[in-house]
Amino acid sequence: MRILLVGATGLLGTAVHEVLVERKHDVVTVARTGGDLQYDVTDPAQVADLYRTVGQVDAVASAAGHVPFKPFGELTIADYQAGVTGKVLSQVALVREGLAHVTESFTLITGVLAREPIVTGAAAALANGAVEAFVRAAAIEIAPKRVNAVSPTVFTEALDVYGDYFPGMKPVPLADVAQAYVRSIEGRQTGQVYVP
Amino acid sequence: MRILLVGATGLLGTAVHEVLVERKHDVVTVARTGGDLQYDVTDPAQVADLYRTVGQVDAVASAAGHVPFKPFGELTIADYQAGVTGKVLSQVALVREGLAHVTESFTLITGVLAREPIVTGAAAALANGAVEAFVRAAAIEIAPKRVNAVSPTVFTEALDVYGDYFPGMKPVPLADVAQAYVRSIEGRQTGQVYVP
Ligand SMILES: NC(=O)c1ccc[n+]([C@@H]2O[C@H](COP(=O)([O-])OP(=O)(O)OC[C@H]3O[C@@H](n4cnc5c(N)ncnc54)[C@H](OP(=O)(O)O)[C@@H]3O)[C@@H](O)[C@H]2O)c1
Ligand SMILES: NC(=O)c1ccc[n+]([C@@H]2O[C@H](COP(=O)([O-])OP(=O)(O)OC[C@H]3O[C@@H](n4cnc5c(N)ncnc54)[C@H](OP(=O)(O)O)[C@@H]3O)[C@@H](O)[C@H]2O)c1
Repeated sequence: MRILLVGATGLLGTAVHEVLVERKHDVVTVARTGGDLQYDVTDPAQVADLYRTVGQVDAVASAAGHVPFKPFGELTIADYQAGVTGKVLSQVALVREGLAHVTESFTLITGVLAREPIVTGAAAALANGAVEAFVRAAAIEIAPKRVNAVSPTVFTEALDVYGDYFPGMKPVPLADVAQAYVRSIEGRQTGQVYVP
Repeated sequence: MRILLVGATGLLGTAVHEVLVERKHDVVTVARTGGDLQYDVTDPAQVADLYRTVGQVDAVASAAGHVPFKPFGELTIADYQAGVTGKVLSQVALVREGLAHVTESFTLITGVLAREPIVTGAAAALANGAVEAFVRAAAIEIAPKRVNAVSPTVFTEALDVYGDYFPGMKPVPLADVAQAYVRSIEGRQTGQVYVP
């Protein structure tokens, strides 16, 4: 399959890229500063432009999304909005603008905070919860095209940076998270939230 | 208790008002155009102003929130943003700005679309999913103050307007929804999503 991978140069994106290439897919990589194509997906006009440049693809996989982490008392309304812009509307735009260009599926990234809270995680929780409910809703209207979310806990490979925020929570290896993308892309389910 | 009820003049707000008065609470009602006090809670500055005017309250109950309903192909990024502004950030601001003024609890409104999709409901789903995840996250950081969501399906009393969008889905009487507010306000749980 020809797959557009957004956020391809990050911790997660690199792992997803690797496994998709292993599975013989033709992957077009996107990031703001690296990859095959440079686009900022928080700007809906750039998302539309990206699809015009890329033409037809079979699947879109998103591994990008930025949300501020701060103690509850320090999170401003602008911070919550930044999370919505950086992780929610960007991924909504990938689906919305992609409908005319993507033949099979969209796979979006969320995270455990949709379900389980951590201190400093309120804006991230809000963003993840928004994307997961969007996925369930969009699925019934874009069928037979499909959309799923991958909702991992902290990555084993990110424990050095984020471990302190997830006390006692078992991390997940990136290799398992990447397999959830394979499941979403090569499987036939839609409206699912995969917890790798 | 002294309770600030936002959206007090609407279909839901009227039902919640009635039951809170029956239970001998002292209710201060807010809406943009009716009620005791006129404020637009989609403007964080007005939310701060509202709390300065009202002074200390024991609980805040929110029954306001507007989100666009349109077929998926017609929902623009601006529509999703309107839902975020109209139902998510407004309620986040009620909690955020309220921490210094509210002694016990916040009760927010979401809805079944967080869990179950309907056609035209993608922006509403996104908003409801965002608020429910926010509630779970905020709860652990604002304790011992509490925050819960009430997440009803379509109201029996709104079937004439919205019934066609919820085929085969059993509606809930407003009286039951109002009891979920009582449970949140007078009970001791936090981080809960009550499905009346
Ligand atoms: N780290 C964890 O433990 C963990 C756990 C659960 C979920 N997640 C989620 O997984 C996702 C990826 O996390 P990560 O740790 O892999 O992040 P990361 O290492 O910072 O990688 C982010 C990737 O996305 C790209 N990117 C960022 N903003 C972009 C934009 N606006 N437009 C286009 N590309 C953009 C980055 O490249 P450029 O900077 O060049 O644009 C990079 O390729 C995030 O949504 C995160 O919330 C992470
Ligand atoms: N109707 C249903 O079947 C159903 C089912 C599940 C969930 N819900 C949710 O329940 C909530 C209330 O629904 P409803 O049917 O009762 O709506 P409604 O009848 O339209 O009432 C909305 C109330 O909120 C006030 N309001 C609206 N925007 C406001 C703002 N920006 N600032 C302050 N007050 C504002 C309105 O008064 P003003 O116009 O004067 O401001 C009114 O008092 C919504 O969030 C809705 O999504 C509804």
